[in-house]
Amino acid sequence: MQKIYKFQTADNIIAGQNSIETLKDNIGLIGDEVKSVLVITQKPMQDLGFVDIITRQLNEKGIKVDVNIDTIPEPTAQSIEDISSKIKKAHYDVLIGIGGGSVLDTTKILAVLEKNDNTIKEILGTDLVKYPGTPTILIPTTAGTGSEVTPNAIVTLPEEQLKIGMVSRYLLPKLVLVDPNLTVGLPKAITASTGMDAFIHSLESYISNKANPISDMFAMRSMKLISSSIVEAYENGKSIKARENMILGSLYGGMALTAAGTAAVHALAYPLGGSFKIAHGVANSMLLPHVMEFNMDCIIDRLYDVAEPMGIDRNLPANKVAEKVIERLREWTKILEIPQNLKEYGVKKEDIHGLAVAASKVTRLLGNNPKKLGIQDIENIYNKLLK
Amino acid sequence: MQKIYKFQTADNIIAGQNSIETLKDNIGLIGDEVKSVLVITQKPMQDLGFVDIITRQLNEKGIKVDVNIDTIPEPTAQSIEDISSKIKKAHYDVLIGIGGGSVLDTTKILAVLEKNDNTIKEILGTDLVKYPGTPTILIPTTAGTGSEVTPNAIVTLPEEQLKIGMVSRYLLPKLVLVDPNLTVGLPKAITASTGMDAFIHSLESYISNKANPISDMFAMRSMKLISSSIVEAYENGKSIKARENMILGSLYGGMALTAAGTAAVHALAYPLGGSFKIAHGVANSMLLPHVMEFNMDCIIDRLYDVAEPMGIDRNLPANKVAEKVIERLREWTKILEIPQNLKEYGVKKEDIHGLAVAASKVTRLLGNNPKKLGIQDIENIYNKLLK
Repeated sequence: MQKIYKFQTADNIIAGQNSIETLKDNIGLIGDEVKSVLVITQKPMQDLGFVDIITRQLNEKGIKVDVNIDTIPEPTAQSIEDISSKIKKAHYDVLIGIGGGSVLDTTKILAVLEKNDNTIKEILGTDLVKYPGTPTILIPTTAGTGSEVTPNAIVTLPEEQLKIGMVSRYLLPKLVLVDPNLTVGLPKAITASTGMDAFIHSLESYISNKANPISDMFAMRSMKLISSSIVEAYENGKSIKARENMILGSLYGGMALTAAGTAAVHALAYPLGGSFKIAHGVANSMLLPHVMEFNMDCIIDRLYDVAEPMGIDRNLPANKVAEKVIERLREWTKILEIPQNLKEYGVKKEDIHGLAVAASKVTRLLGNNPKKLGIQDIENIYNKLLK
Repeated sequence: MQKIYKFQTADNIIAGQNSIETLKDNIGLIGDEVKSVLVITQKPMQDLGFVDIITRQLNEKGIKVDVNIDTIPEPTAQSIEDISSKIKKAHYDVLIGIGGGSVLDTTKILAVLEKNDNTIKEILGTDLVKYPGTPTILIPTTAGTGSEVTPNAIVTLPEEQLKIGMVSRYLLPKLVLVDPNLTVGLPKAITASTGMDAFIHSLESYISNKANPISDMFAMRSMKLISSSIVEAYENGKSIKARENMILGSLYGGMALTAAGTAAVHALAYPLGGSFKIAHGVANSMLLPHVMEFNMDCIIDRLYDVAEPMGIDRNLPANKVAEKVIERLREWTKILEIPQNLKEYGVKKEDIHGLAVAASKVTRLLGNNPKKLGIQDIENIYNKLLK
């Protein structure tokens, strides 16, 4: 456990069913002078009418609203800079991101690019952003990445076959609206992969070398909410109760990882996203049980704790309880029909070494892992996913 | 349970033993341009060397540090305005408050007075502060008021024999340092009353009409930490573990009340502070069991929940469990030797009606109480404390 620890989050969080309808009442939290807003999103969010809900409320307040739908999934640095050069001259007072992690991360980076004369590559890494960006409002539509409350944004660098994080206090938004209604129509596969991603944020935070009393509180609550609802949200997407538990579980997962950091699951997932475009949640879910098995001898006591919010019987020796936790994770990936084989994504035996070398460079996250991983360890884990 | 709910907190929280020593590394979170700082505190904090720890670190960074020790306990509007007129021309870049709730509240109000051309009376109430104040850093030395993470500050208006709250987003600090070391030397009576105050923040938030999933998480965790440690912190003040649990419990209590608000215990305590200078934590502790007994029929299920973090056996009918919760609260006030009789403070039978009328005006908090209180109900509760 870390002795001195840090917590940061969004300035204002409004949560609950229909909280998106409070935008007009809460836009004042940004300041009195909001005249023009740019909504960053993707076409599906327009088609579902989410953008209209925003535009209607802001127009009623006399605020001009433009919309950009150019965000791509697992966004590259280039794709974000393309949007940036398109909008830079318009001087919006606020950027609103509504969407999944790709949209929220794109919005966060666009906002700091507005006020910093840098390329994205120059400010990738930790605390390299010099000035606060344009204020942002983030509205997640998945549950999720937790990106709405983290000081992190992830970009893909295809030329380096890698995803890299930007970490800065200035990536945190002014306002977050957490409305479970927006997740009711999520396709099953996205409910599954993003829900697992949220759980992994909390589990990795809980076993992180930087775990601390604050991150533990969020992580444990998050795992309890997600464990109680992930299968229900997948099988019965219209259940508002399950959707609310999931989106809060994701929010708390974001808070946990802000305070403690994720670890080897995320480090090994990045090259799979960078080189083979495997969606972040899917890559994480595939790796999860294998990385936890690798970590096992160092995390028995922590997995024993985790059994409690997961509702797993703890009247057994601790190592047996820990095994049951991993068993449950495997069961979920089966029920949630998450792919288990890297071959489906075109990964071949000969790609593994390169992937492992790339993963070994994600030292920001590997440093949080309770057990040290060498290149060979990483290759062994990837090889388990080549069936 | 509130359907739409809001969460706000300090921009940056650094916690853990010796976290006060990270001030020099974290002052940059306020911005690059910090040249001069005013420390708001009281003489005991100087005598204990806490101010020196701050001054040394900031001087090393070339920052000029002035110190003001004029904060009075349960500060009046006049006392804060006196400090304000003294400092107004010095244009400090940051105000640092180090102390208990009185110091932290004074610092928060001084900071907004610096940037708003108002008297305190003009901005008492909710959301009446127009502009952000001078940035603040808050360092609690009790566990505590939770003031370091709330958008509230309480002032006494002696002419109206009342304490009134100022509530504004702009009262939240830029940085909080939560260092249990600073509480190790707290006198027993202050450990007791402030510890009970912290617990009451969480309990009242949990039974509040505005309770919600976010406030519940903080409240439950806070009650667990405080229940496990309040007697130990009182009896063995040198226990760092107990002190850390208490200061985190207080921090989470502040977060809970920010999201859900306190209720009738606080409303009835204010006139006791305003008219008879009874310390906030003492007034709250005296009232606590009586107000909970009054509320009982409306909060059985919630007190049943609270039994869990308090470690009270729940294998009984819910109403019996709820009674045991109140019994435990009474036990604590005995063990912690908290006064139980208003006569000790000079309150007489004939004062009760006036106190009740004053309390009935604290509608901001009474509105959160799960059971409506009339003047007669309030008088009945006060009368139980006249023995």
